[in-house]
Amino acid sequence: VQPRSIAILGGTGRQGRGLAQRLASAGYRIVVGSRNPTQAAESVRAWRVSDRVSVATYVDAVARADRVILALPFDAIAATLERLRGTFTRGLVIDVSVPVVFEAGQAALARVPEGSAAEHVRARLPPEVAVAAAFKTIPAHVLDEVDRPLDCDEFVCGDSGDARAAAVELVEAIAGLRAIDVGPLSRARSIEHLTLLAIGINRRHKSQDARFRIVGL
Amino acid sequence: VQPRSIAILGGTGRQGRGLAQRLASAGYRIVVGSRNPTQAAESVRAWRVSDRVSVATYVDAVARADRVILALPFDAIAATLERLRGTFTRGLVIDVSVPVVFEAGQAALARVPEGSAAEHVRARLPPEVAVAAAFKTIPAHVLDEVDRPLDCDEFVCGDSGDARAAAVELVEAIAGLRAIDVGPLSRARSIEHLTLLAIGINRRHKSQDARFRIVGL
Repeated sequence: VQPRSIAILGGTGRQGRGLAQRLASAGYRIVVGSRNPTQAAESVRAWRVSDRVSVATYVDAVARADRVILALPFDAIAATLERLRGTFTRGLVIDVSVPVVFEAGQAALARVPEGSAAEHVRARLPPEVAVAAAFKTIPAHVLDEVDRPLDCDEFVCGDSGDARAAAVELVEAIAGLRAIDVGPLSRARSIEHLTLLAIGINRRHKSQDARFRIVGL
Repeated sequence: VQPRSIAILGGTGRQGRGLAQRLASAGYRIVVGSRNPTQAAESVRAWRVSDRVSVATYVDAVARADRVILALPFDAIAATLERLRGTFTRGLVIDVSVPVVFEAGQAALARVPEGSAAEHVRARLPPEVAVAAAFKTIPAHVLDEVDRPLDCDEFVCGDSGDARAAAVELVEAIAGLRAIDVGPLSRARSIEHLTLLAIGINRRHKSQDARFRIVGL
């Protein structure tokens, strides 16, 4: 039995590209969902494990996968899910976005009526589709430097134990990452605050690499 | 020149007691502010470095210190600062509180009109008094086990570079703690979310000790 693929929508951005290559290296088959598959296929040819990566439209990528990572900027999520209405009927969607805005030169989290980006995604999918959040705190450029060993924790929350377990499996498939299950999807805002803190820390400490590890488990 | 003392209001609770003893061990003179100084003096006699610790009323403790740590539960802060109105005229106040509430069995952060506990404190002090936040994420019981070596980061924010530097100095005076300056006081809510995450992590991972370390600086 061939394992079903993982779709990564927006898979040619830095975050999606990093996830796609690292998960492909871990043995998963990846379908990169792109609005421009021809151009995306061109990019993917330069990747290291391109034999396990295929390219498709968003709709086809979702149809071929039971786990879909939305590697889209927060601002693009509502319109994309509206356009894909009816496409998602089961499986798991993983939100990796953080709605950062800049107000008077300070990074801040955008107010999201649903509470968090992950709950914003939840509100736009049918109940048969599970939603989890993961990969929100590791810097995109660190993920994208695919030869760089990872050494931090990634925080997972989700709307069921199964959703969290599936997201934890993906996090831990990537060498050097430890998954920390923080509970229900309503914890997503706290995870998004970690990213905001990392931005503030980077700014004050002239770094681009701040990320988190939990001590005491 | 004798260094001025550090006042710790509510210094006989677990968090205050841990801070008092660890800062006294680092060489600081501590004034524990208590609503019941006679009883507090009794407690302090059992502490390890009691020769550098004195006990006073809240008002006297504030008068004798240029740095005041508010080691009070969040719910007690507004009434306490109202009662002490006029007592704070200069120096630095450090908020260490996290407004955790339980809603339907889930820990959450209380809505705070000012944005965070630290800004709640800021709104109740005159502009001549600087405000910083620190010691919000290390578990009180870990701090209180004074023989236990520390090994994590503590996040500092504050309303000026001087305020942050003074708070960073206190954090780093405690062996094993590294201070991470995250910027202006408006970052306090993100720090409070760290504590909320730690509560969720502890619950799922059957721990009481989750705390944070930054990777990549």
